[in-house]
Amino acid sequence: MGTINTIHGDISTPVFMPVGTQATVKTMTPEELCQIGVDIILGNAYHLFLRPGQEIIRITGGLHSFMHWNKPILTDSGGYQIFSLGRLRKITEEGARFQSHIDGSYHLFTPESVIEFQMLLGSDIVMPLDECAPYPCGYEEARIARDRTTRWAKRNKQAFLTLAKSANPDSSSSLFGIVQGNMYLDLRRESIDELTDIGFDGYAIGGLSVGEPKEIMYEMLKETAPHLPQNSPRYLMGVGAPEDILEAVEHGVDMFDCVMPTRHARTGEVFTSNGPLVIRNAPCAADTTPIDLECGCYVCRNYSRAYIRHLIHANEILGVRLTTWHNLAFMMNLMKQIRESIQQERFMEFKKEFLARWIATGRKGTM
Amino acid sequence: MGTINTIHGDISTPVFMPVGTQATVKTMTPEELCQIGVDIILGNAYHLFLRPGQEIIRITGGLHSFMHWNKPILTDSGGYQIFSLGRLRKITEEGARFQSHIDGSYHLFTPESVIEFQMLLGSDIVMPLDECAPYPCGYEEARIARDRTTRWAKRNKQAFLTLAKSANPDSSSSLFGIVQGNMYLDLRRESIDELTDIGFDGYAIGGLSVGEPKEIMYEMLKETAPHLPQNSPRYLMGVGAPEDILEAVEHGVDMFDCVMPTRHARTGEVFTSNGPLVIRNAPCAADTTPIDLECGCYVCRNYSRAYIRHLIHANEILGVRLTTWHNLAFMMNLMKQIRESIQQERFMEFKKEFLARWIATGRKGTM
Repeated sequence: MGTINTIHGDISTPVFMPVGTQATVKTMTPEELCQIGVDIILGNAYHLFLRPGQEIIRITGGLHSFMHWNKPILTDSGGYQIFSLGRLRKITEEGARFQSHIDGSYHLFTPESVIEFQMLLGSDIVMPLDECAPYPCGYEEARIARDRTTRWAKRNKQAFLTLAKSANPDSSSSLFGIVQGNMYLDLRRESIDELTDIGFDGYAIGGLSVGEPKEIMYEMLKETAPHLPQNSPRYLMGVGAPEDILEAVEHGVDMFDCVMPTRHARTGEVFTSNGPLVIRNAPCAADTTPIDLECGCYVCRNYSRAYIRHLIHANEILGVRLTTWHNLAFMMNLMKQIRESIQQERFMEFKKEFLARWIATGRKGTM
Repeated sequence: MGTINTIHGDISTPVFMPVGTQATVKTMTPEELCQIGVDIILGNAYHLFLRPGQEIIRITGGLHSFMHWNKPILTDSGGYQIFSLGRLRKITEEGARFQSHIDGSYHLFTPESVIEFQMLLGSDIVMPLDECAPYPCGYEEARIARDRTTRWAKRNKQAFLTLAKSANPDSSSSLFGIVQGNMYLDLRRESIDELTDIGFDGYAIGGLSVGEPKEIMYEMLKETAPHLPQNSPRYLMGVGAPEDILEAVEHGVDMFDCVMPTRHARTGEVFTSNGPLVIRNAPCAADTTPIDLECGCYVCRNYSRAYIRHLIHANEILGVRLTTWHNLAFMMNLMKQIRESIQQERFMEFKKEFLARWIATGRKGTM
């Protein structure tokens, strides 16, 4: 339990950050996000650099103004997206060269340039350029990527100090460090030591949830998160499913982001207190109950499963609006319950109760 | 200027009815429609009969409850959709046999069955089954379709009287008649006489805007609308563009529906006080002004053309949400201005002023 302060507002942790890759949390307006209790969203420097591009962001006054969102924004540097480009990218000591997935144009991201662009975006929390090794990955390859991440971390920090000061002496942006080391605990522990030596405002665990079995992810989490500085925010990147969040909170993680609630919503999968539900399927066709009887969100107060299923089958945009809205509201409510249970010193009880119903559907690990 | 009263609320005319074919006005929630001043929407019996079907509508308590819309609904019978099916339909005296455009299944709509289904939907304004001749069309073919429309009109009326009473003695649904006769004025004048002899709660002009030149549509309108009963609502089906609405209001039309504002929105075309604007295009890329500086809608208060163009290019659902929202708000505002100008006895002035700016872009007739 804690609070992260930014000039765009305070964030109560543990917090889930909806993903707004392309300057929009898919299907949602900022007002709707506020209505369900979203305090911070995630943007992506890689995507925004390619489209709409630096010039449009500059002209429109930064990302907050561009997308009409006045609360905090954390922006990822795009390191992970570039890593995912495979043959379209080449990593050198200078930085990451890549071809745009949109038009094939060539670009170079350096530790300096990603900081500069995120300052232009006006991010409240800036993420550094890192190198994320794939899974599976040999020890040497993982070590090389981790070492480069450390060297880049120093350059990220230096660029941040210079640029934040020159752009705005009162700049209140924070810079986080990203722990790498693949699935090798000693590499990750060293990464933590190196990053804390450099000194960041918060620490992220990168390179998990990249295809490894859940057991390995949980092991890494358990052996890494508790070693991060206790007085700084700890952020588990790209996670998670409700069960993963509960596991990570137990080990001290404060911040999460994941496309799952919005992506699943678009394929007709919704979250309920009794586990995930595929609302596309036939059993919902004549079901006049809401998605989740225990949920008090706008969608569950006003619409039946039958109607939402109809919309999805008819390819109506309102269908994915409603499933997205509900799934995000479900996540916000989960985080609220987690914070309350921590405050009331009964987190482990809450975790057990929630999981007992959540995994009763037998779909654990598939969401 | 007038008011149509229904148990779901009153409707000030002239009115534009957004189209909600599949139990949703595309991309919009009912609350958003209320916010922009929508007092009545249009549903479609053909589409709803095929999906979700009678059983789901029955179980969920009718269309209002199904889609969470508490204001009036006019439902079209589906005559026009069946007519548009071409080879997939066959008209006999009994009714219209057709194959579903969704799964190829066979169905029969009769003047009686369309009334029954619309009563199940709980429509406030029920439309009869008519036969809409194509354009161009010979005189004899037009006369045959018009005559059948009249014979069906009698059966529609009889079914309505029987069913409305048996379903609910206090039923407050209205039944309209539909004038046919293609582009032959004498056929249309006779159609009006025949329908007024039967007696309906309102009268619609069908079979216009089916591909004929605007001059012909305007001629038909001018020579038909003024002959409809003055004390009943007059409804021009499937129209229209702002310029068509202004023309029709001049000749006494009270009600309109058209997919144009929502359909154009989805292709990135928006309405402004200075005429239509293709917001997809390059000139909007760095344009920090709203869609329409004179519009006070949620979209124009909060978003730039640059942002909306970005969303559309990035295939983000919020893009079509914002363009749809604005286009419908623009139409609602146009209708409000029309009603005010009639009240202030300066409608012809308003028409002239509006058109002078609207057609200045030289795109009249293309929207």
